[in-house]
Amino acid sequence: MNLLNLETPCLVLDRGKMEKNISSLHARMKALGVNLRPHGKTAKNIDVIQIAIAGQSGGITVSTLKEAEYYFGHGIKDIVYAVGIAPVKLDHIANLMKQGAAITVLLDSVEQVRFVAAKGVEYGLSIPALIELDCDGHRSGVPLGDSLLMEIGRLAHDEDGVELAGVLTHAGASYQCKSIEEIRAVAETERYVAATSAGVLRQNGLPCPIVSVGSTPTAWFAEDLTGVTEVRAGVFVFQDLVMAGLAVCDVDDIAISVLTSVIGHQKKKGWVITDGGWMALSRDRGTAAQKVDQGYGLVCNVEGQSLQNLIVASTNQEHGIIADRGGNEVDWNSFEIGSAVRILPNHACGTGAMYDKYYVTDGSTEITDVWSRVNGW
Amino acid sequence: MNLLNLETPCLVLDRGKMEKNISSLHARMKALGVNLRPHGKTAKNIDVIQIAIAGQSGGITVSTLKEAEYYFGHGIKDIVYAVGIAPVKLDHIANLMKQGAAITVLLDSVEQVRFVAAKGVEYGLSIPALIELDCDGHRSGVPLGDSLLMEIGRLAHDEDGVELAGVLTHAGASYQCKSIEEIRAVAETERYVAATSAGVLRQNGLPCPIVSVGSTPTAWFAEDLTGVTEVRAGVFVFQDLVMAGLAVCDVDDIAISVLTSVIGHQKKKGWVITDGGWMALSRDRGTAAQKVDQGYGLVCNVEGQSLQNLIVASTNQEHGIIADRGGNEVDWNSFEIGSAVRILPNHACGTGAMYDKYYVTDGSTEITDVWSRVNGW
Repeated sequence: MNLLNLETPCLVLDRGKMEKNISSLHARMKALGVNLRPHGKTAKNIDVIQIAIAGQSGGITVSTLKEAEYYFGHGIKDIVYAVGIAPVKLDHIANLMKQGAAITVLLDSVEQVRFVAAKGVEYGLSIPALIELDCDGHRSGVPLGDSLLMEIGRLAHDEDGVELAGVLTHAGASYQCKSIEEIRAVAETERYVAATSAGVLRQNGLPCPIVSVGSTPTAWFAEDLTGVTEVRAGVFVFQDLVMAGLAVCDVDDIAISVLTSVIGHQKKKGWVITDGGWMALSRDRGTAAQKVDQGYGLVCNVEGQSLQNLIVASTNQEHGIIADRGGNEVDWNSFEIGSAVRILPNHACGTGAMYDKYYVTDGSTEITDVWSRVNGW
Repeated sequence: MNLLNLETPCLVLDRGKMEKNISSLHARMKALGVNLRPHGKTAKNIDVIQIAIAGQSGGITVSTLKEAEYYFGHGIKDIVYAVGIAPVKLDHIANLMKQGAAITVLLDSVEQVRFVAAKGVEYGLSIPALIELDCDGHRSGVPLGDSLLMEIGRLAHDEDGVELAGVLTHAGASYQCKSIEEIRAVAETERYVAATSAGVLRQNGLPCPIVSVGSTPTAWFAEDLTGVTEVRAGVFVFQDLVMAGLAVCDVDDIAISVLTSVIGHQKKKGWVITDGGWMALSRDRGTAAQKVDQGYGLVCNVEGQSLQNLIVASTNQEHGIIADRGGNEVDWNSFEIGSAVRILPNHACGTGAMYDKYYVTDGSTEITDVWSRVNGW
């Protein structure tokens, strides 16, 4: 199989680039003496995750129970479900635990401790729970210094059916940073909030075996992880244009791209029309607020080499409009009607979610494997 | 089954609202004396499309060949594939035609006529082709008055393997209209461009049996469709917040919603945290440019009644942040941790694409059916 014969749009994965991205973060984690718990939400695929956990403890993070069930079905037992828990999901979790999965849930309220505990008792389980901490004000979690930490911690420790496993935080604000220095500062805050909160629990006689932090930018640029037991990151396996804009990677490191066909020219407007619209690329415009706005994606030739000035400037559901970002004339001969181009995505998670599989290449246009994705919930 | 027992997030379809939306557009088309060719790209489900084609000619529109194959497998033969054709898709189309499907392709270049004709000859088929017209400058198509129309038309008529079936245009610009009057004017332009171009072909001795126009807003507000043989529309089956912002429907007409669980409170910020993030709602922000910005969606209670001032103000991958748009205090008792809420989507196509099925209700929280969706390509 060759990329040139595939129906478009479809998702292409360059295995060599992915392996390089994974080994780069492994080296950084090793230097800092911390275990990596890869987040399965980006790849949603066991082949990628098996490469990402090699040399680590073997535990992973997930964003859905569908991922949890899928990865457990492929032999991974130690799973942190890193979205605040809801009662309608607990039977599913308890059933997976009864089959041998070790699933840790996340919570930041007394109510959640109570319903997790009740379900644990019902199933004769002690469900491990991490307390979510808020390190940057961007969504969930207990803020540093809030007495709620000890209230939740004490209850989770005392109640039957639930087990206090530690603390977890995520510096989502790192995606909005404007410089490496800023990411380093956010990483240090993420570490400080987690380590300090763990200290509060321990000083009050409670256990806190897990101190979990992470986002791809903070994992990449953290300089010190004292007090942290594990780092979570997902996007790093593929990287994307948002990460390139944050200096986490180069554009050439991005391992996934969308293969599309040229289906028209609007020469007076300087537009190349493709069949890669927002359904194919996702609506993610994560680079819009960065120094270089990449539109809906950066254009590459079919071999995967980026054409610096050409971006997907606009999209409809099944149509992409490629234009030169500087308004220069397009080289129409490079975009013959019926020819193929590849588009690097703003956000690997968002673009990946539009596909049920990867066409894996070794860097050429030859396809070496087809790997599935586990989308949905 | 009841909505209250479902794992969240998931997609809910109110069948009664959908049937009302469909019969409303049917009545409008009947009054204008034109056939409706429903677009299967929104529902991506045969049960919805069977209701939408009742009383019409039975033909449909699709946005992917996966839809074409799926609908054909459910007995629908007359299918317009309304995305400019690429050569890598022609074997798939030819194989479906060999099995009995009548698939019409779309094109706006001489190159496309040539490769369609060659493939038709290869398979011993005459592949019907519509010439795409540009009625609003928003993406593909031959502009009104361009000599390319006759060039393509003549070639498609003369070549073996391809058959000139008519013209097609789509007033995508209708989504950006600011008033009903503006939509009516766009609808008239859409009609005028299609009917006039059809006239040019016919005056020059070429056949033009099909004159196809459509978008949900122009279909809804068109006052005259003289010269048009069929109207295409997709979103109307469900409607959405963008359509409500265009006065095509009321918020209460919207037939799909995302069921999510409340997983946390950030009371000082006035935030209710849910498990419905952008993966569940899509990244579509189609109401951002409208008079009323609905954020990532409008919040309803679990029975589906909208809570006027509460929107999903912000999202992460698996987290939604509900806030009052006026900054008023949230009624926390209505959003207990662990309770369920429903979110009306900005764009039915974008949100639907994140799910592989609908939980169909009769308006209560009881689930009467589960209908699948055919996503991807």
